[in-house]
Amino acid sequence: MSDIYRASTTAPVNIAVIKYWGKRDPKLNLPTNSSLSVTLSQDDLRTHTTASCSPSYPQEDTLLLNGSSQDVSGARTQACFRELRALRKQLEDSDSSLPKLSSFPLKIVSENNFPTAAGLASSAAGFAALVRAIANLYELPASPTDLSRIARQGSGSACRSLFGGYVGWEQGSAADGSDSVAFQVAPASHWPNMRAVILVVSAAKKGVSSTTGMQTTVATSSLFASRAAETVPRRMQEMQKAVQEKDFEAFGKVTMMDSNSFHATCLDTYPPIFYLNDVSRAAIKVVEAINTKAGKIVAAYTFDAGPNAVVYYLEENEKEVAGLFKAVLGEKDGWQGERGSKVEAGDAAGVQEEAGVAIDLLKDGVSRVILTSVGEGPVKTEKSLVNEKGEAMA
Amino acid sequence: MSDIYRASTTAPVNIAVIKYWGKRDPKLNLPTNSSLSVTLSQDDLRTHTTASCSPSYPQEDTLLLNGSSQDVSGARTQACFRELRALRKQLEDSDSSLPKLSSFPLKIVSENNFPTAAGLASSAAGFAALVRAIANLYELPASPTDLSRIARQGSGSACRSLFGGYVGWEQGSAADGSDSVAFQVAPASHWPNMRAVILVVSAAKKGVSSTTGMQTTVATSSLFASRAAETVPRRMQEMQKAVQEKDFEAFGKVTMMDSNSFHATCLDTYPPIFYLNDVSRAAIKVVEAINTKAGKIVAAYTFDAGPNAVVYYLEENEKEVAGLFKAVLGEKDGWQGERGSKVEAGDAAGVQEEAGVAIDLLKDGVSRVILTSVGEGPVKTEKSLVNEKGEAMA
Repeated sequence: MSDIYRASTTAPVNIAVIKYWGKRDPKLNLPTNSSLSVTLSQDDLRTHTTASCSPSYPQEDTLLLNGSSQDVSGARTQACFRELRALRKQLEDSDSSLPKLSSFPLKIVSENNFPTAAGLASSAAGFAALVRAIANLYELPASPTDLSRIARQGSGSACRSLFGGYVGWEQGSAADGSDSVAFQVAPASHWPNMRAVILVVSAAKKGVSSTTGMQTTVATSSLFASRAAETVPRRMQEMQKAVQEKDFEAFGKVTMMDSNSFHATCLDTYPPIFYLNDVSRAAIKVVEAINTKAGKIVAAYTFDAGPNAVVYYLEENEKEVAGLFKAVLGEKDGWQGERGSKVEAGDAAGVQEEAGVAIDLLKDGVSRVILTSVGEGPVKTEKSLVNEKGEAMA
Repeated sequence: MSDIYRASTTAPVNIAVIKYWGKRDPKLNLPTNSSLSVTLSQDDLRTHTTASCSPSYPQEDTLLLNGSSQDVSGARTQACFRELRALRKQLEDSDSSLPKLSSFPLKIVSENNFPTAAGLASSAAGFAALVRAIANLYELPASPTDLSRIARQGSGSACRSLFGGYVGWEQGSAADGSDSVAFQVAPASHWPNMRAVILVVSAAKKGVSSTTGMQTTVATSSLFASRAAETVPRRMQEMQKAVQEKDFEAFGKVTMMDSNSFHATCLDTYPPIFYLNDVSRAAIKVVEAINTKAGKIVAAYTFDAGPNAVVYYLEENEKEVAGLFKAVLGEKDGWQGERGSKVEAGDAAGVQEEAGVAIDLLKDGVSRVILTSVGEGPVKTEKSLVNEKGEAMA
């Protein structure tokens, strides 16, 4: 059928090293502080999304993720659809030869290449891919910065997944959010040897959603204001400098301190919010032991709103960092792939003595590892998840 | 032998509801913020100390605690001995008929009535008893306030154990610490129905000593300054008002928030300090479920520098609070005594649904419970731990 329009993209996950926590405007997802993240390689973690529209589709917009139908009636998804349609409408209004895609129902089909059960922040990749795919479908001239403004309304941290490499999100000050956009601090090629090992912690379901949690923090934590007003602005400067200078010790120290600061404000929330558990704390102990053994910071932990540890390190320290985890967690899922099989197991002596109890806790509590690296932003693909007849192929 | 001088006292444990964390002068134990505690009943938790001196004793000062010889050469113990001897010397200098006790070696014998292994802050009761016993021995006219100034130099929180009831510790501003003393907010009789159940968590040894820990917090936590400068001063006012008005909801809310704030600054320390573990967090969840079921705050958790939970409640809510713990932890040590056997087991329904996983964690991780109440300050006793021959009777 010739009236089926389709465009596809992939988009990456990003893991913040300066954390986003707290909205000054919950409707527009405007944050109380700037943040900074590393975009992770789509070889390992990505959302693949096809946006499709047609006058022949049933009237309702739909979204299929990993084969299950998702609710698109929420304000966040609706905001993205509305903004993108408005931009398309402008094009159509200025050029009457263009097909009226903005008036057609949307059919979105998405797939993640990583287990949803892993509890990784998939909404960032998801909304980035959704916005990028629809922008491609509508042939919008919008830049990644423009799209970051839209994706932010879907999920705050999604705005950072519009860029590859090292990415900031400027909190901005405008009431309409027009200046609250993502920007690239440096491309992946600037500091390409950044690696990450993710320790996926087998956990019960997440207790508190991050949207609810962060607003309770803003309302009740007495320490939060100083984090937002003083700590984060200082660290944003330190972190950008560390990235520019490829200074891993500074990058690592600020990463760890900011993760701790974020979880401290969660604990200072009333009632308190706990994302770290005993296994998370064991990962911190093991990272500390790795750094003690190395005599410098070669590994840096960070935790999002959940118990999984993301440990950043440089390729040249792979044996000391990922290799140490392979030595003690070698039987877990995740070492079989191309990246994992290349990792040379490190020497657990020293670390074992320093953090023996912690290593035992990791062995019990980590369900799988994921190895990845810094990577690129969204990539257009010809591989469509909707066939020529307009049917989902997932 | 007639040249053996002896005096004995008991002194209580106190558990802070506004926490002391951070020294502005580590040598004098001068704190960065004021604090406030509840003195616990000596029926349940106390140190019993006899101070003795004699010209016939071997030349060195000695301290026996629960039958084991303790090192008294540390700066803290020495500071207490020195200050008390100086006060005695003043008396001797002004009245030459007095025996020269200040020149005699001290023999101190102490016993705790609670298991040391419980990880309860015993240094507060220990130094309060030591200072009070020597002051009795020396027949010093010193007030509890004067003695609190000396005991503070042994262990900061010990100054609060010189008083019964509800006790503040004014941080003071003088460089010599002269105005950093304890004061009674209200006697135990003002609000006598305050109760506490302590959940003793079986834990590996304490990771970070509080003295080291708090100074690392002061040096590295970016959130700490706002706690000391803004949060605690406000809460000191709120808490004193809550005690004056016997307002348990306000007392409980501030108690829980301040415990969380203190542990948040520990987590914000670099490297982070963790005292709460998964069992501690389970205790928090169960307290939250108890309060949800009651429809108001009837139970308030607080945690010192360790995983044990202290849960305050009022006698009239015993069944809902202590009784709930009895219903789920009834097989643990601690319910057999007079207080424990009087507790009527509560109804775990509702709480079980709200916090079932947490209850299972408590069953696994709590080794014993201790039931107690608000109590009196140090009490002079004729029961001596040193006999007439100057021998320790422990």
